[in-house]
Amino acid sequence: MKNAMKVIMGSLVLLTSLILLVSCGDDGDDSDVLNSITKYDTPKYVFYFIGDGMANPQVNLTEAALNDDDFRLAKPGDVGVGVLNLSTFPVIGMATTFAEDRYITGSAAAATALACGKKTTIGTISQNGDHSQDFETMAEMAKAKGMKIGIISSVSIDHATPACFYAHEPSRGNYNNIAAQMATSNFDYFAGGFAKGDFEKYRGRDPEGDPKDIIAEMQNAGYTITTTRAELQATQPGQKVWAYTGYDGDAALYYELDRPSDHVSLAEFTAKGIELLHSKDGFFMMIEGGKIDWACHANDAVSAAHDLIAFDNAIGEALDFYNEHPKETLIIITGDHECGGLTLGFAATEYESAFALLKDQKISYQEFAVRVGNWADNGNVNFSTALDSMKYFFGLGNANLNNALALSEYETNCLKEAFNESMSGDTDRDNEENFLKYGPYYDPFTITITHILNQKAGIDWTSYYHTGVPVPVYAMGQGQYEFSGSYDNTDIAKKIIEIAELASD
Amino acid sequence: MKNAMKVIMGSLVLLTSLILLVSCGDDGDDSDVLNSITKYDTPKYVFYFIGDGMANPQVNLTEAALNDDDFRLAKPGDVGVGVLNLSTFPVIGMATTFAEDRYITGSAAAATALACGKKTTIGTISQNGDHSQDFETMAEMAKAKGMKIGIISSVSIDHATPACFYAHEPSRGNYNNIAAQMATSNFDYFAGGFAKGDFEKYRGRDPEGDPKDIIAEMQNAGYTITTTRAELQATQPGQKVWAYTGYDGDAALYYELDRPSDHVSLAEFTAKGIELLHSKDGFFMMIEGGKIDWACHANDAVSAAHDLIAFDNAIGEALDFYNEHPKETLIIITGDHECGGLTLGFAATEYESAFALLKDQKISYQEFAVRVGNWADNGNVNFSTALDSMKYFFGLGNANLNNALALSEYETNCLKEAFNESMSGDTDRDNEENFLKYGPYYDPFTITITHILNQKAGIDWTSYYHTGVPVPVYAMGQGQYEFSGSYDNTDIAKKIIEIAELASD
Repeated sequence: MKNAMKVIMGSLVLLTSLILLVSCGDDGDDSDVLNSITKYDTPKYVFYFIGDGMANPQVNLTEAALNDDDFRLAKPGDVGVGVLNLSTFPVIGMATTFAEDRYITGSAAAATALACGKKTTIGTISQNGDHSQDFETMAEMAKAKGMKIGIISSVSIDHATPACFYAHEPSRGNYNNIAAQMATSNFDYFAGGFAKGDFEKYRGRDPEGDPKDIIAEMQNAGYTITTTRAELQATQPGQKVWAYTGYDGDAALYYELDRPSDHVSLAEFTAKGIELLHSKDGFFMMIEGGKIDWACHANDAVSAAHDLIAFDNAIGEALDFYNEHPKETLIIITGDHECGGLTLGFAATEYESAFALLKDQKISYQEFAVRVGNWADNGNVNFSTALDSMKYFFGLGNANLNNALALSEYETNCLKEAFNESMSGDTDRDNEENFLKYGPYYDPFTITITHILNQKAGIDWTSYYHTGVPVPVYAMGQGQYEFSGSYDNTDIAKKIIEIAELASD
Repeated sequence: MKNAMKVIMGSLVLLTSLILLVSCGDDGDDSDVLNSITKYDTPKYVFYFIGDGMANPQVNLTEAALNDDDFRLAKPGDVGVGVLNLSTFPVIGMATTFAEDRYITGSAAAATALACGKKTTIGTISQNGDHSQDFETMAEMAKAKGMKIGIISSVSIDHATPACFYAHEPSRGNYNNIAAQMATSNFDYFAGGFAKGDFEKYRGRDPEGDPKDIIAEMQNAGYTITTTRAELQATQPGQKVWAYTGYDGDAALYYELDRPSDHVSLAEFTAKGIELLHSKDGFFMMIEGGKIDWACHANDAVSAAHDLIAFDNAIGEALDFYNEHPKETLIIITGDHECGGLTLGFAATEYESAFALLKDQKISYQEFAVRVGNWADNGNVNFSTALDSMKYFFGLGNANLNNALALSEYETNCLKEAFNESMSGDTDRDNEENFLKYGPYYDPFTITITHILNQKAGIDWTSYYHTGVPVPVYAMGQGQYEFSGSYDNTDIAKKIIEIAELASD
């Protein structure tokens, strides 16, 4: 094939030169044309993957950890990296993320940019900055064109990122109003988490909104609601479906690290979406990996990496589809912002890394923090027993697993101090030093465990919040080269809308 | 032009389809060809820019700071970013950097990968990992082809990165042997820093090497040595030139922030290189921005940003050349590794950034640390006077400039503790906590100043060393699209060698 390519290239040089002479002989600016001749068909199947809190460092962490012994892909002694599906994409861009009113963006302003191609203010769902105007989203454009629409997220389906594709609200916190707009969207497939807008406490959160029974509104709008894997599998193309299975207290999927096997995965929701939406009219699917962000807020590298792997597995479903329909498909992957100030280096580990130390973490920080909360409530666990629990669930302190997991005196002191803080029930973080150590509201003992474990592996964080570094954009399929180079996050949406010809004439 | 392009594209679709039918009609795998038809001429002018310690975060920092009020480009109230020359490049790739024997690479192993396309061990200069074999460098290949060769660096010209293009040594520390290989390289232009190998202390560093008088060796080999701007300007094409002006104790250019006006800049060295090497035989130029790395080791964001701007100004010279010779030129920019675990977010500043707070730093950490060292030697400066000096040189603590520069009690305590440590002359960092706070050998008071100033601006670091995150690759010119996507740092060299046809047949 490679030789055949060369022959074609050779022929094309001549032909192209000829055409150029005829078509723009008066134009000295033909170098770009000679350098790259890019054409594409209009894609009718568009996948838009958004990793919340996913920028380069999250990808780097996951690929580094993937490679190391037993984390998932066992390659003992190899200092290289594992390869996620997204790193096989032929085109990369870098996109700035700032909001209209803040350099470090939030998920609502970022998702508005990614869905509509326009900047807005922090917290706004697909409206302009002063909320006087709704922005049309690319999903709404695609629907108007007759394409089937799927919106999938591992967090609640009315969370900022998915919301920005079907709703318009002045505040991302108006979950009741946002969720109600699912029912009026007429979109074909909603899947992943449940709706916070159906929770009693959110039903009247918007002072101008009414209490909403989202399940009833969706049923009245003709949606089949499935709550088990079997029910989801039984749905058929032509049905409008809202699918969720198990969810946590925020109506989100469990962390991948904690997910019970009867909870449907992000990849399964994606595969079913392809099955339901595949038709001659084409489809637009947005798939969000939403808890990469949450794990990074909590500085839990292992939970973030597992959620990124779950997200990448969903990308794998799109890749399978692409391989069957390469001339009709475009896949775009990006993040809305980085989170946590993650990097793969730490002062005390100097030039060394030991990602394999992460492999013994069994549960997310969240699951462990629930246990610590119970200890504090019951007052029945001392520091020594707490360390035993830490050894079991994180591997940290267990020198039998790996000498490098042993605790230094300094580390033990940090853990002791954090444990006492956890047991005290003091949630005040006005003390600047404690705020830096434990973050705004995380359990001190748990976050000290993930900090020390991460640092021993050669990983560190600078923040409990989003950061301002740009996000990568990965593109594959028709129009892919349009995503090459450096641009703004609003340009990602503009490019997709133009390439897939989503805008009405 | 855009409409003309569309016409050309339309015509090409038909022609391409025809060719494809004829040339590979039996091949179902023609989707990639249809998707992107890329051809290029063999570039005869190759620029290879290497930012030492430059990965995405360094670029992000500089563009964020550039935008902010008064840092360089004044755009008050704008939350966007400034744009460096490198961000105008049409193609981006991401490259892994790991060495043969360590995940976090060093400049020698990384530069060997970038110069030769092969992995090696930490500290090795263009040899294989066990030092039994020399690797041919792309500069040597280009020389053998008859191209003119220029090697430019803002650090010493025998430092790891430039060395890997002309020398072969088992250890980067053998400066005497490395520098001596400049003289035998027959390359046409060396410029930037002086040679550490000419320093008395390095002349016999390699136990098997002889003391070297590098200036004499270069003169004997026919090089014109210039040590002033005027002497450099007087050189002519056809002369072999080694150019340096002022240099610091490591034979490197001063930090851009400290550079006296009579010291030639990296951009000037680059512009002169273009003038000297431009000929029908083509040229290969490697230009390193070497002190971005050093500033990041010391966690000094302002010095790093200014050195990156100086590096980007050198890229601007190449861009000017490219615009005159677009069909014959390829420009590649990359970094060898990240340094410092830099990011644009910090726990205490939460979602806020204030890059404008950086604008009042007048000198590098290095210049300031020399002053602090003198205070310690003379014992004549108390904490209050030290704070005054800090206010003057960094702006930190000067609420008249900006309220946000005022110190909290916690920050003042950190500075007091660090000042006492600096005055004590204690350079022991065995204490884990002090090591984390001050790094392996930096002046405690100075690095505490840059830490607090950076953090107030919403910037933070995790390390005093390199990190393992991949580096961006920017490409413009003939063959640019070959650099799209994710790959390894060895692939960058392989691609350049193939595209520019540097390898001997």
